[in-house]
Amino acid sequence: MTVDLRSDTLTRPTPEMRRAMAEAEVGDDVYGEDPTVLALQRRVAELFGHEDALFTPTGSMANVLAVASLVAAGQEVLCEASAHIARAELGAHGAITGLTMRTWRHPRGQVDLDAIAEMYAPDMGPFFVRTTGVSVENTHNFAGGAVLPIDDLRALRAWADSVGVSVHLDGARIWNAHVATGVPLAEYGACVDVLSVCLSKGLGAPVGSLMVGSSAAVAEARVRRKRMGGGMRQVGILAAAGSYALDHHLERLADDHAHARLLAEACGLDPATVDTNIVVVPRDDAADFVAGARAGGVLVAPVGPRAVRLVTHLDVSREQAEQAAAVLRRL
Amino acid sequence: MTVDLRSDTLTRPTPEMRRAMAEAEVGDDVYGEDPTVLALQRRVAELFGHEDALFTPTGSMANVLAVASLVAAGQEVLCEASAHIARAELGAHGAITGLTMRTWRHPRGQVDLDAIAEMYAPDMGPFFVRTTGVSVENTHNFAGGAVLPIDDLRALRAWADSVGVSVHLDGARIWNAHVATGVPLAEYGACVDVLSVCLSKGLGAPVGSLMVGSSAAVAEARVRRKRMGGGMRQVGILAAAGSYALDHHLERLADDHAHARLLAEACGLDPATVDTNIVVVPRDDAADFVAGARAGGVLVAPVGPRAVRLVTHLDVSREQAEQAAAVLRRL
Amino acid sequence: MTVDLRSDTLTRPTPEMRRAMAEAEVGDDVYGEDPTVLALQRRVAELFGHEDALFTPTGSMANVLAVASLVAAGQEVLCEASAHIARAELGAHGAITGLTMRTWRHPRGQVDLDAIAEMYAPDMGPFFVRTTGVSVENTHNFAGGAVLPIDDLRALRAWADSVGVSVHLDGARIWNAHVATGVPLAEYGACVDVLSVCLSKGLGAPVGSLMVGSSAAVAEARVRRKRMGGGMRQVGILAAAGSYALDHHLERLADDHAHARLLAEACGLDPATVDTNIVVVPRDDAADFVAGARAGGVLVAPVGPRAVRLVTHLDVSREQAEQAAAVLRRL
Amino acid sequence: MTVDLRSDTLTRPTPEMRRAMAEAEVGDDVYGEDPTVLALQRRVAELFGHEDALFTPTGSMANVLAVASLVAAGQEVLCEASAHIARAELGAHGAITGLTMRTWRHPRGQVDLDAIAEMYAPDMGPFFVRTTGVSVENTHNFAGGAVLPIDDLRALRAWADSVGVSVHLDGARIWNAHVATGVPLAEYGACVDVLSVCLSKGLGAPVGSLMVGSSAAVAEARVRRKRMGGGMRQVGILAAAGSYALDHHLERLADDHAHARLLAEACGLDPATVDTNIVVVPRDDAADFVAGARAGGVLVAPVGPRAVRLVTHLDVSREQAEQAAAVLRRL
Repeated sequence: MTVDLRSDTLTRPTPEMRRAMAEAEVGDDVYGEDPTVLALQRRVAELFGHEDALFTPTGSMANVLAVASLVAAGQEVLCEASAHIARAELGAHGAITGLTMRTWRHPRGQVDLDAIAEMYAPDMGPFFVRTTGVSVENTHNFAGGAVLPIDDLRALRAWADSVGVSVHLDGARIWNAHVATGVPLAEYGACVDVLSVCLSKGLGAPVGSLMVGSSAAVAEARVRRKRMGGGMRQVGILAAAGSYALDHHLERLADDHAHARLLAEACGLDPATVDTNIVVVPRDDAADFVAGARAGGVLVAPVGPRAVRLVTHLDVSREQAEQAAAVLRRL
Repeated sequence: MTVDLRSDTLTRPTPEMRRAMAEAEVGDDVYGEDPTVLALQRRVAELFGHEDALFTPTGSMANVLAVASLVAAGQEVLCEASAHIARAELGAHGAITGLTMRTWRHPRGQVDLDAIAEMYAPDMGPFFVRTTGVSVENTHNFAGGAVLPIDDLRALRAWADSVGVSVHLDGARIWNAHVATGVPLAEYGACVDVLSVCLSKGLGAPVGSLMVGSSAAVAEARVRRKRMGGGMRQVGILAAAGSYALDHHLERLADDHAHARLLAEACGLDPATVDTNIVVVPRDDAADFVAGARAGGVLVAPVGPRAVRLVTHLDVSREQAEQAAAVLRRL
Repeated sequence: MTVDLRSDTLTRPTPEMRRAMAEAEVGDDVYGEDPTVLALQRRVAELFGHEDALFTPTGSMANVLAVASLVAAGQEVLCEASAHIARAELGAHGAITGLTMRTWRHPRGQVDLDAIAEMYAPDMGPFFVRTTGVSVENTHNFAGGAVLPIDDLRALRAWADSVGVSVHLDGARIWNAHVATGVPLAEYGACVDVLSVCLSKGLGAPVGSLMVGSSAAVAEARVRRKRMGGGMRQVGILAAAGSYALDHHLERLADDHAHARLLAEACGLDPATVDTNIVVVPRDDAADFVAGARAGGVLVAPVGPRAVRLVTHLDVSREQAEQAAAVLRRL
Repeated sequence: MTVDLRSDTLTRPTPEMRRAMAEAEVGDDVYGEDPTVLALQRRVAELFGHEDALFTPTGSMANVLAVASLVAAGQEVLCEASAHIARAELGAHGAITGLTMRTWRHPRGQVDLDAIAEMYAPDMGPFFVRTTGVSVENTHNFAGGAVLPIDDLRALRAWADSVGVSVHLDGARIWNAHVATGVPLAEYGACVDVLSVCLSKGLGAPVGSLMVGSSAAVAEARVRRKRMGGGMRQVGILAAAGSYALDHHLERLADDHAHARLLAEACGLDPATVDTNIVVVPRDDAADFVAGARAGGVLVAPVGPRAVRLVTHLDVSREQAEQAAAVLRRL
């Protein structure tokens, strides 16, 4: 039987999650009348200690809305060069919001406060682009699920306050950081002005993300969400899956992390370098490696020409992880 | 018990539709692996005689993708001045696609071919905006669910071919036009280059629309959908509701139309002027009318300061329609 | 000798205007240090009774900046369907500002207050596009240089104030309206929130327009002008030509108007229908007419396939106008 | 007498340059009928060995047009983090073109081919942003007028060809690089697909830049220039100044470079680190330094809170440079 390690977005809803969706109480959320969505939005806002939250069809939309609440057209956001917002949202921040971006580079996607402080451009009148936001990603997808240490986020927050710039967190996998480190979600929330979280990666819901922030930012994002075509109707069907996932699939992320370390070891990597559920394997023969794994019944994904990514998730049991490890060990 | 006539987007999924969702086979549609979505896309494309279709979270997104497949930034689309794309998509076509729009005005939202031909601007070099698309809406929401006669669409098609311009149909409620007139869906499809259809209005699905067009247009729209944040994962959950709705909720739209005529009569309008499931009641006292109806347990929506809109749908039974008519007759 | 009636943008600077340019005192206007630009900006602002003005390389940029000061991305401006901002600025208002546009149609480009009031959309929350600006053009280029009566502009102003919407005037040829009617420029200025004027059409300067409005609107436009690439340096060279033109070429526009009536008569039109310096001649054989005129040494321009435009200007003397009239009379 | 070292954009046209402008033969350049512009465009295209060139009101517009000819909305350009296109064009590339940007960081603004190759993203389908352009700046303004060695540009060209990506050169001060190194302009031109050059910095023309590239790129840029409001009329007036500057002000840039080294020494810097006409002086007391210089009759500009920029140019004689050096030495 195939073990699919291409992405944690691949998970299928469990029978219990399907039942939760089938029984969800719903209404027209464009009119703000879907009780299941409203409850999920309140719950997630509270988890992070923010005022409000907004359900979106994807993490990309949540990120675009979140960053746009900090950075206007013609203004600038700073982020790490392999951030999801820079690489994997098809340029939406420039194409839709009209903002501009500059990047620092870090092999593990970490906060480089020296670089940020040096790049930061205050308001200098109608001559220079002004930095109004800094974005970080935790865990960092293309850096192999790396965790950003909470102390680094606190230092970023302190610096940001000192110069008056805002901070965005792409928290698509903040759940993994939380489970891996034990840092409460609210402590992550306290470091940032706005964040996105995703329900359809490690948590295993079929569809859905949320943008989390102040009431004002969320009210403004509600308008932008409509303009972007994200104002869905009886979407409590999907929110119910998210609520179920928060109840039942959060703590088990620790299993995914253990499985990832197992796979890392099988690929000749030091398991201690794997923070969460993603393993990036440097392979000059990436395409061959992918093909070889497939031949053994293991699906993995190339990330660029010289690396392969393995991701563990809800649909990969301990047994399947071991089976995959055996296949990969031979490559 | 309240009768909610504010919109046909308010319908809640039926138990059978919920079961269809709960049992749907799903996969990651970003990877093109959700069989339920793929089947629905094929089915809807075939219904309209087009090559391909693409599932979207909303009709607004389907319209933005569809029009953008015809009209680039800096080019022009012509439409009726109260079209949904002009009034109710929060300016997405300008803000996201960067196109520009000119409008003709018609109290019933009809095709005015003289106006279109007069406004049409061919390619005249780097001096003038060029018209590359004409958009029509059938049925026309803000014109009270008015049907566009198929002969008018055919004439538009012929003219468009003669000058080399493309045609977009906002078919959010094309189902109502089809049921009201008996014109096959494929005949509507044959008149246009690209169209959108909605599953969550009269058909009663909770969420979802499709953009329908050529394989090339759909491939390009798939990229733009990702950029707009509409690339959802196990979205077969929602597509299953759409498929169920096409099986079970299409022909019954005739009931909604009958109920709408009943309500129109109750409001002192000629029922013959009501083509489908929407009744626009001109009332200088719109706000009072809305309040009065609510006091009688009937929810209706103002459309601007001098008109009220009543919409019949799946969640309004014959009995409820009669109950609402009785209340409205007294206002 | 050829008589060039294609456009009033074709005028070449006179020897005296060239001398004014050559002697202009200049500085770096990006730093706000060009005295000749500053003086022209003050002068033009005062002519229209507004607080400030901003020099731009073209009328198109002045219009984009002016409309953008009233209408944000995702908001709406209403204008006549053949307005310069709709037809001849290559879609900049959608492509750059991200606004959306709806249009009324009038064969003479006039203010249709009934249409405007009917189309006007107030703020109705996150559902509908909101109208924040109405734009008019005086004189109206594609309507044959038609003047908008001051009483119509006053009525528009009164209505706009009553609903809280702003008014933009494309005044590229407001000079012609002023000379043709005797209405003071300040009275036109009093009817609008922001306007553009052009120095390089009837006034005969080689390059330059101004956006005119409140101090706040101009300060914001200064930033946008830099973003659009319009922040020029020692541009007093050009401003000097504009100042010279205001001193010497304003009143003589009456000659252009007389020449235009002469040409209209020669083309079989009623000269009383020609308000200023533009004559639009309906000709089903537009291309042949253009070619025939050229053969006689008269250059005219097609506007669409069924009309030809003749424009009189500073470089067309009485004698040349009569010569052209003789040629055109024969076609 | 004040010595103004804030920028080389501050130069005023000389009497001879003014005469060239006053005597320029002109026409309507929107119609392509201005012989002086056409000649300058041909001349500059030939200098760099490219097919065509386009006059623009500013270097910012030339850069926006040039980069947009390589990188579409939703695609990516890579550049150094303190590039003019990233910092000093008010975000136009994102706000107007809709592209996205990632940056490498280099204290001297140099080409970092390892960083570029690592960041480069090929076309990987509808999932990741694709890199379609790399932009470099020579000389590099915010890196203190640093020259990019021609060998580095050749290496970039070779790498770019190997992966199929295009290269843009912001050549606002390529004249300085040419004079400082003796590398022919055509050799710089051979390394890039498209470039911008500026006439109003070291060359001393009052206004004007050009975008230089293939015939196809320039034809497309002509449309975009019109949309951005850069389609000026009898602009030969300005082009004449540019032609004069190329004839008379190019070789003398060597004087500016010598003056800059003199100033660097006075500020305690190693003159060998000053490649051309810009000196960036690191000063933690930037504001005080600026004020002290002003008190001594020397105008200098802060670049951020901890550095000051001195720029030599046509309006700073040897004597004035020495006078300024004496003042700065005391600070």
